[in-house]
Amino acid sequence: MSEIRQDVTTNEWVIIATERAKRPHDFKKEAKALPPEFVEKCPFCPGHEDQTPPEVLAYRKDGRPNGPGWWVRVIPNKFAALVPGEVERSIEDGFFRKMSGVGRHEVLIESPKHNLYFPFIEDHQAEEIMLALRERYLALQQDPHAKVVIIFKNHGAAAGTSLEHPHWQMVATPIVPQSLRRRLAAATRYFDDNGGCVLCDMVQMERAAKKRVVEETPEHLVIHPFASRSPFETWILPKHDQASFGQVSLDEAKALGRILRRTLAKIFAILGNPDYNLVMHTAPFQDEAKGVFHWYLRVIPRVSTMAGFEIGSGIFINTALPEETAPFMREISI
Amino acid sequence: MSEIRQDVTTNEWVIIATERAKRPHDFKKEAKALPPEFVEKCPFCPGHEDQTPPEVLAYRKDGRPNGPGWWVRVIPNKFAALVPGEVERSIEDGFFRKMSGVGRHEVLIESPKHNLYFPFIEDHQAEEIMLALRERYLALQQDPHAKVVIIFKNHGAAAGTSLEHPHWQMVATPIVPQSLRRRLAAATRYFDDNGGCVLCDMVQMERAAKKRVVEETPEHLVIHPFASRSPFETWILPKHDQASFGQVSLDEAKALGRILRRTLAKIFAILGNPDYNLVMHTAPFQDEAKGVFHWYLRVIPRVSTMAGFEIGSGIFINTALPEETAPFMREISI
Repeated sequence: MSEIRQDVTTNEWVIIATERAKRPHDFKKEAKALPPEFVEKCPFCPGHEDQTPPEVLAYRKDGRPNGPGWWVRVIPNKFAALVPGEVERSIEDGFFRKMSGVGRHEVLIESPKHNLYFPFIEDHQAEEIMLALRERYLALQQDPHAKVVIIFKNHGAAAGTSLEHPHWQMVATPIVPQSLRRRLAAATRYFDDNGGCVLCDMVQMERAAKKRVVEETPEHLVIHPFASRSPFETWILPKHDQASFGQVSLDEAKALGRILRRTLAKIFAILGNPDYNLVMHTAPFQDEAKGVFHWYLRVIPRVSTMAGFEIGSGIFINTALPEETAPFMREISI
Repeated sequence: MSEIRQDVTTNEWVIIATERAKRPHDFKKEAKALPPEFVEKCPFCPGHEDQTPPEVLAYRKDGRPNGPGWWVRVIPNKFAALVPGEVERSIEDGFFRKMSGVGRHEVLIESPKHNLYFPFIEDHQAEEIMLALRERYLALQQDPHAKVVIIFKNHGAAAGTSLEHPHWQMVATPIVPQSLRRRLAAATRYFDDNGGCVLCDMVQMERAAKKRVVEETPEHLVIHPFASRSPFETWILPKHDQASFGQVSLDEAKALGRILRRTLAKIFAILGNPDYNLVMHTAPFQDEAKGVFHWYLRVIPRVSTMAGFEIGSGIFINTALPEETAPFMREISI
């Protein structure tokens, strides 16, 4: 019989469908071929800097801004979902509530190479990508309208990206998303019920249980969560209790880059260059000081499809057992 | 500049990204080829009734149960996410909450023909599919552990189906999904603030505004909602204020079949046999009598992909304006 499991960070339920469960090795796939290192039509490839809005950050030794020579580059999104401006709120016909699409939307280009996927970069490049994300987080936090920064990466068409060149996105929103409010409420309730942080307790519980642990470093615990929503969903939990990604030290940011590279390398070794999303769940700015929220990074390989049941109920059906996939991934050599 | 719009049924926000918006005719596609009428390997094709669990309902004139001769057939799902049994709840290590996967999971096969898609069926067949769904809803409601029935349809691989033969699914869950609790809470709060039903008010407001109306019948209003999450998302709103699909009369069920057929025919005419999900949002059994919830049917063509931003924030970015797609769809002749 299946199990219905609760995600303690959201109180949402997940069905672990053991009846139709696949074994971990059933997910194994040969690696897809990589694209070329340079693509003439790609606006993120070096030499094409004038095809993007002017950069807001770049790590380069020589050369002028918006020219080649960089190894990490951050630009405003040319097709931004939200742009700087004034917040205007209104209620059409006294019923339809809306506001202007004010905010920031930036793109971080991981490296000049079109085909250098995260598992294959050098550790120092992984570190610098995280340092750049942190630097821009702190800059976006200064925007007077911004309430939170959503940090994510889409890799591959099934993960919703149209641009192949490896990149991250950061969106500063003028509202606090409802789903984040709920995470905060769940963490607050847990704190008040238990006198401690839910993610800190999860780190402790998963370390003790061992069976869902993929890897542990001095700074992070990597797990397949108890209530995984999809096969090989992986969480990178910082051990240091911090509400937001903006609060990490330079060393912690670098450590995150290294463990993320190792984690994605393991996922690539099993799933063969899968499409995937990376998502950081980080606190709204105004809740950073409350001592309740604890940020973390989710890796979501897109090996299953959200269907009508998930859309209608919010309950995901997962056909893999995290207790089986975690040891499998732990033992993969990279 | 984009607009951030609030869905009054959930209080969730949606970004209508006008900067990168496509025009309605940009979505136009040629129809994909249909599969054959009969597929030897399909367990839902007639003559293969012994490849499924025994039927729980079938509309047929002659012939024995679990043989051919039916025109609508309902069976338990062979790979059920939830199955009948006893509810057992536990908390592993005092932290990880779970329960047994108890419930019901049924499949409704729309017709014996493998390639008879909903827009092309006769009205009487569309009516009978709805009558069968209603009949099974009322049967599932008798299950002592069931709290709600999730009714949905997945059409096409991008919508999460592995079986091509047109079918619906019904899952009776032993829990009330959090997302449904939130819909109920939003409706209750609206009722208490405004002294009326939010969906009834939406019907009235959309009829007055006209610009997002696709079609109106005596029983239903078809709209592209103000806070559409994806292009051509279509809601079929029953005008009669009822909490659940199980409360519809036989005539109302038949009318739903007819308007759904017309709606999908329009979507097919524009998007060319797209993959799509149908989802009914219907009240938990124990809230049916409260007079707050109002069920409705959502049609979600899968023309966009959920990416990291949506996963991380719960905020969808929609690149089409419902005020443009609704008139376009209204004027399509079928």
